[in-house]
Amino acid sequence: MEARTETTIFDAVPLDALRRRTSQKWRRYPPDVLPMYVAEMDVLQPEAVVRAVSDALRAGDTGYVFGPGYAQALAGFAADRYGWDVPVADCRLVPDVMLGVVEVLRLVTGPGDAVVVNPPVYPPFVQFVEHADRRPLAAPLGPDGRLDVDALDAAFAAATSGGRRAAYLLCHPHNPTGTLHTAAELAAVGELAGRHGVRVVADEIHAPLVTGTDDTGAPLPFVPTTTVIPSAIALHSASKAFHLAALKAAVAVPGPEARADLARLPEIVLHGVSHLGAVAHATALRECGDWLDAVLDGLRHNQRLLADLLTAHLPEARWSPPDATYFAWIDLRDLPAVRAGADPARLLLDVGRVAVNPGPTFGAHEGAGFVRLNLAASTATLTDGVRRAAAALR
Amino acid sequence: MEARTETTIFDAVPLDALRRRTSQKWRRYPPDVLPMYVAEMDVLQPEAVVRAVSDALRAGDTGYVFGPGYAQALAGFAADRYGWDVPVADCRLVPDVMLGVVEVLRLVTGPGDAVVVNPPVYPPFVQFVEHADRRPLAAPLGPDGRLDVDALDAAFAAATSGGRRAAYLLCHPHNPTGTLHTAAELAAVGELAGRHGVRVVADEIHAPLVTGTDDTGAPLPFVPTTTVIPSAIALHSASKAFHLAALKAAVAVPGPEARADLARLPEIVLHGVSHLGAVAHATALRECGDWLDAVLDGLRHNQRLLADLLTAHLPEARWSPPDATYFAWIDLRDLPAVRAGADPARLLLDVGRVAVNPGPTFGAHEGAGFVRLNLAASTATLTDGVRRAAAALR
Ligand SMILES: Cc1ncc(COP(=O)(O)O)c(C=O)c1O
Ligand SMILES: Cc1ncc(COP(=O)(O)O)c(C=O)c1O
Repeated sequence: MEARTETTIFDAVPLDALRRRTSQKWRRYPPDVLPMYVAEMDVLQPEAVVRAVSDALRAGDTGYVFGPGYAQALAGFAADRYGWDVPVADCRLVPDVMLGVVEVLRLVTGPGDAVVVNPPVYPPFVQFVEHADRRPLAAPLGPDGRLDVDALDAAFAAATSGGRRAAYLLCHPHNPTGTLHTAAELAAVGELAGRHGVRVVADEIHAPLVTGTDDTGAPLPFVPTTTVIPSAIALHSASKAFHLAALKAAVAVPGPEARADLARLPEIVLHGVSHLGAVAHATALRECGDWLDAVLDGLRHNQRLLADLLTAHLPEARWSPPDATYFAWIDLRDLPAVRAGADPARLLLDVGRVAVNPGPTFGAHEGAGFVRLNLAASTATLTDGVRRAAAALR
Repeated sequence: MEARTETTIFDAVPLDALRRRTSQKWRRYPPDVLPMYVAEMDVLQPEAVVRAVSDALRAGDTGYVFGPGYAQALAGFAADRYGWDVPVADCRLVPDVMLGVVEVLRLVTGPGDAVVVNPPVYPPFVQFVEHADRRPLAAPLGPDGRLDVDALDAAFAAATSGGRRAAYLLCHPHNPTGTLHTAAELAAVGELAGRHGVRVVADEIHAPLVTGTDDTGAPLPFVPTTTVIPSAIALHSASKAFHLAALKAAVAVPGPEARADLARLPEIVLHGVSHLGAVAHATALRECGDWLDAVLDGLRHNQRLLADLLTAHLPEARWSPPDATYFAWIDLRDLPAVRAGADPARLLLDVGRVAVNPGPTFGAHEGAGFVRLNLAASTATLTDGVRRAAAALR
């Protein structure tokens, strides 16, 4: 294993400081467990965000949200990073991405209608769809971890049978696999959705976190869904990329053919939006590009580190670095213990005292034998985590 | 008019500083309008809240909410202020009061079922009930601004006709009238609700803001609904009393006979809760009692001030100080312009350049000729506001 001595943005917070945090990642398990689950990053906040929120608090600027500030900040960021022209006046603030997803699904489907999802997928997709009285319908990703057009075709047909309305909840980039959908894939989705009359709702919360590069070393582009599928509606938020889950807020962005639909969103939805969430997110998008670039560098570093660690300590694990976001979706099905039927996340927790997200929570079938590990951590944590995992699985 | 020279907590922020705030109160209207609407207070935050949130941000403690901290802080506050024993282990965090109301209504009613409300009442009660696919049913307050048992009886009967499930969304204390319900009134509600099989959901967000005193000068008690109606579920939050609408969070508290119902709340609801909202609210409830007492003193002062101002400048206005919260619900029906059919809030805005909440938004019939004015303001603002109003209505 090649020695890696660079430090990254993730090395800035010592473990004992992390353990003083009061969020879910650091409080759900006892202190002998190393937490490498849940979508929280082991980073400090960008100074501009700390300052903006603290200043607003100190000024008593703690009333209700108002105005297009967050959507404008998103538009600036999106123009700069994706070359995307966000229609600010048509955007709507929502309390967070998942509540936004629910509100948008309610605009384009009715109770009992189907919502197609791609397991393995972020568990709340299924949970919120069910809580919204819609019916999740699985079109699993292919064995390559990419969208499976045939599975989508079949699911869209089933979803719309009997003339029912239906939606497709796309995760772009995809959690947990880190798959970045291409323009060609989105075009194929758009063709299918148009043919079947299925409405596309794209959760693009991980969009700022593209780490992949092409053969020439140039960064892969994030292609906004609505630029390919004009009737889609996308959800954006700074909360994942800037470690701001604690201060929720999100923006719903309509494609050119979805403006009238999003305009039907009841005004009362804005009531649930946090003013300081919007202030924090807007500041992050406007002022913290360098911080984000350091996160992306750190993630690329950690992808190489994890590859090395797995080669050295867990050669049976199958994994290759994804194109986006900060998860590693690791296939442990070749491990003898897993072949014998053990849930690897359970072994990792009980024996190794390292907490990862169990694969089956992302799809009972598609996730069996997998775990999701959070790469937004220090070299020390990743190294310790893989060692604990390897020991637990022997 | 008697001169009042004391300053209150509301005199600490000069108007030009308020005008730099970016929240709805200060940005919806142009700067020649004096805003005296919306439930934001013209105060600074308690220092402990500023510090707790800033410290968490600086530490990167910005992940997902976890644990009973907020419910425990509420329990301490409630024991101290209301002599109420909050069942912490049975409480559930919700994103904010109104989203919590919706989630609780979904537990005890089905789509199309009726939810009884008491106009004039906080407009989102009707808007959220409708958005949750339930049917608002009006049982107006009596002419004395108190619960009208006969109206409730009739509404409960209509709501449950045909054996339907139904709920009653009680506002305690009541927005906009500031009515504080007594133990005897709550007992009457409980008797009616039990007889008709209607479930009581109590929004108690204004509970910390009781200003009234009895004949001996002793503070009036806030009687928690669930202590009188064991099958009720109450919603509490620090956001109104501590000017924290920008950092949303709330706690659902079941009565002794509603524990099993609240336990059915899907776990996914917790996803929408802001960790820093919970931190801010818990800090306020735990550490900021003196700040709250200063707010209550300021409100009592401002109630006397408003009474004097109305006597001096708008003697046709009918108003007497309420027992709770920071609104003045002012009856302007005797003003000639209003008798002639004008909406007083419109005149106040267009002619007086002072923004108040229009009475009819709280109930088209019950609010006609009324305005709601926000008393959580400086002496200078209140004085200027009443002068503008008086000039506009002549
Ligand atoms: C795909 C996806 N959507 C949404 C979220 C959560 O966003 P929010 O907290 O704004 O609902 C996450 C968090 O990990 C996610 O991975
Ligand atoms: C009676 C009542 N309930 C709820 C709210 C709002 O609470 P939240 O922002 O937590 O939904 C208000 C705000 O003024 C209110 O007056």
